[in-house]
Amino acid sequence: MKVVFVAGDPKPERWTAPIRTLLPEAEVFTWDPDGPAVEADYAIVWQPPAALFEREKNLKAIFNLGAGVDGLMAVSALPPELTVVRLEDAGMSVQMAEYVLHQLVEASRDMNRYREQQRQCTWKIHRPIRRNEWPVGIMGLGQIGQRVARTLTALDYEVNGWARGEHSLDGVTTYAGSGQLGQFLNRTRVLVNTLPLTDATRNLIDYPLLSQLQPGAVVINVGRGESLVEEDLLRALDEGQVARASLDVFREEPLPADHPFWRHRGITVTPHISARTLRESTIEQITGKIRDHAAGMPISGVVDRSRGY
Amino acid sequence: MKVVFVAGDPKPERWTAPIRTLLPEAEVFTWDPDGPAVEADYAIVWQPPAALFEREKNLKAIFNLGAGVDGLMAVSALPPELTVVRLEDAGMSVQMAEYVLHQLVEASRDMNRYREQQRQCTWKIHRPIRRNEWPVGIMGLGQIGQRVARTLTALDYEVNGWARGEHSLDGVTTYAGSGQLGQFLNRTRVLVNTLPLTDATRNLIDYPLLSQLQPGAVVINVGRGESLVEEDLLRALDEGQVARASLDVFREEPLPADHPFWRHRGITVTPHISARTLRESTIEQITGKIRDHAAGMPISGVVDRSRGY
Repeated sequence: MKVVFVAGDPKPERWTAPIRTLLPEAEVFTWDPDGPAVEADYAIVWQPPAALFEREKNLKAIFNLGAGVDGLMAVSALPPELTVVRLEDAGMSVQMAEYVLHQLVEASRDMNRYREQQRQCTWKIHRPIRRNEWPVGIMGLGQIGQRVARTLTALDYEVNGWARGEHSLDGVTTYAGSGQLGQFLNRTRVLVNTLPLTDATRNLIDYPLLSQLQPGAVVINVGRGESLVEEDLLRALDEGQVARASLDVFREEPLPADHPFWRHRGITVTPHISARTLRESTIEQITGKIRDHAAGMPISGVVDRSRGY
Repeated sequence: MKVVFVAGDPKPERWTAPIRTLLPEAEVFTWDPDGPAVEADYAIVWQPPAALFEREKNLKAIFNLGAGVDGLMAVSALPPELTVVRLEDAGMSVQMAEYVLHQLVEASRDMNRYREQQRQCTWKIHRPIRRNEWPVGIMGLGQIGQRVARTLTALDYEVNGWARGEHSLDGVTTYAGSGQLGQFLNRTRVLVNTLPLTDATRNLIDYPLLSQLQPGAVVINVGRGESLVEEDLLRALDEGQVARASLDVFREEPLPADHPFWRHRGITVTPHISARTLRESTIEQITGKIRDHAAGMPISGVVDRSRGY
C-alpha cells in the first residue's frame, strides 16, 4: 500500500514519521511537486494542488486534514467519483464548545466592561446574568454543533438547533430545513454557526436572516467565513439589531489588516483558532481508517458529494 | 408566624412583597433599626447588625441571603444555639462554573494576546491548547465545587478535587484532608478555590501551598478573599511559579483603588460577580424552608456551627 502526504507543512516528517509507525504496512511518500507519480493508493491532504489528481490516477480515497472540505471540493481536478473522507472531531469539537461558551460569557456578562473597569481600578457590579435572556440557536447539528449544544444545555442555557435535516437531541429544540428557519431565528438571541460551507450555506447569514434574531443578538461564527455576508453583519451591528459578534473565520484568511472587522467595537476577531486539529489524534484517526478501508471495511466521515460535506 | 427581613437593600419591598405572596401565612416586617422588637420567629438576613439578636429573642432560625456565612458567624451577638441556614445554590453554582471555565480559557488560550493582536490588526495563530497540560484542582467539593468539576470533566479536562472530608465524584480524583493536600497540589496546574471561609481555610492559600502547584500555575479564586494570602500570591506571580490569577473575591471589598492587584499584568480582577444570587429563586428557596421548618420538617443547608459552614 502506498500513501502520499500532501500538505504545505514545512516539516512533513512530523506527520510522515508517526504515519509510518502507525501504518508499517504502507510506503509513505511526501508529495514532491516535481516528482514522478508514485502510484499512491491513498492521499492525506490539506489544500492539495490540482496536479495531485492529474498525476496520481490510482487513488482509492483521500483523507482531508480538516473537518471542512469546502476548499477541497473546489479543486477542479478532483475526480467526481473519488472517495473523500473528512476529519472527524480529532479533539476539535470540545475546543469549539469551550470557545463558544467563552464568547457567550464575554457577551452575556460584558467582560470587556470589567476589563475596562480594572484598567480604571474601578469596582462596579452590574446586573447578574439571567440565562433565560440568552437563548442560544446553533446552526448545524453535526459533531461540533452537538457538542456545543451539550455543553450549553449542561450550563442551563435554552438551546435551539437548526439543520438541513431532522435531528433529535436531548434538551434541545430542533428545527429543520428552510421552512423552520424563521421559527428558529425568532427563538434565538445568540446565533452560533457551525455549518459546513456548501452552495446551500454560502451567504446564508445575511441581513434578512440577522433581522429575525432577537434584538441585541450575538453572532458567534466558528463555521466558515463565506456563510456570513460581511457587510450585512456590519449593517446589523450599526443598527443595534446585533449587539456583538465573535468571529473566528473569515471570507479571506488571514483577515486583511485594513478590514473593518478588526477595529469594530462590537466585533471580536480571533485568527481561526476556535479549534485546532491535534496532530496525534488526527494521524491516529486517518491511519486507522486507511487500514480499515484497505481491508474492505466501512469507514465513517465519507463526504456525500451531492451535499458537499 | 412573624418574619423579619434584615438587609441593607434600599428597596426592601422588592423582597418583602414576593415573600408575602409566597408565605401568606406570615406577617413580614422590614428591619427597623429604631423600632421595637417584633417577636420574629424567623429572620432573613444579609450582614445583620448585632442589634437584631439583642432585640429579637424568639428567633427559631435565621436564613442567610448568601452561601457563605463567614460574615454572619463573626457577629458576636449571634446566639450559639440559633439555627443558621445558608443559601443553597439559587442559581449560583452554574454561574460560577461558567465563570471558572471562562477564566480557564482566558489563561489556557491566552485570550489577552488575541485581543492585543486585534488591536494591532495582526493575524497570528499560536499553538493549540492541549488539555493534558491544564490539569485542574478544585478546592472545596460542595455544591459549587461539584458543579465546576462536572462542567470541566464534561469538557475533557483532568479534574482533581480536594476537601476536608472524603468525596466521591464521577470522573474526578478526590483527595481529603491535610494529609493528601500535597498530592493534590502536585497534580494541579489550575487551582480553583471554592472553599467556604472558616478558621481552617483562612490564609490557606499561601506561598508554600502555591509552590506545590505545577509550574506556570493559574489561580482562580471564587471562594473567599481571606483564604488567599495576597502578598504570597504576588511573590509567586513575580517568581513565575504562578503565571496568572483570576480573582473575584478579596480580603477587602470593594478592592481599594490603590491595591496592587488592579494593575498587575498577571491578575484579572472582577468585582465579586462570578455568581450572583437571583432574587426569585432565593426567595422561593427560603420561604419554602421557613414553611417546612415551621411544620417541624427537616430542612437542608443548616450550618454546622462547629465547622463554620
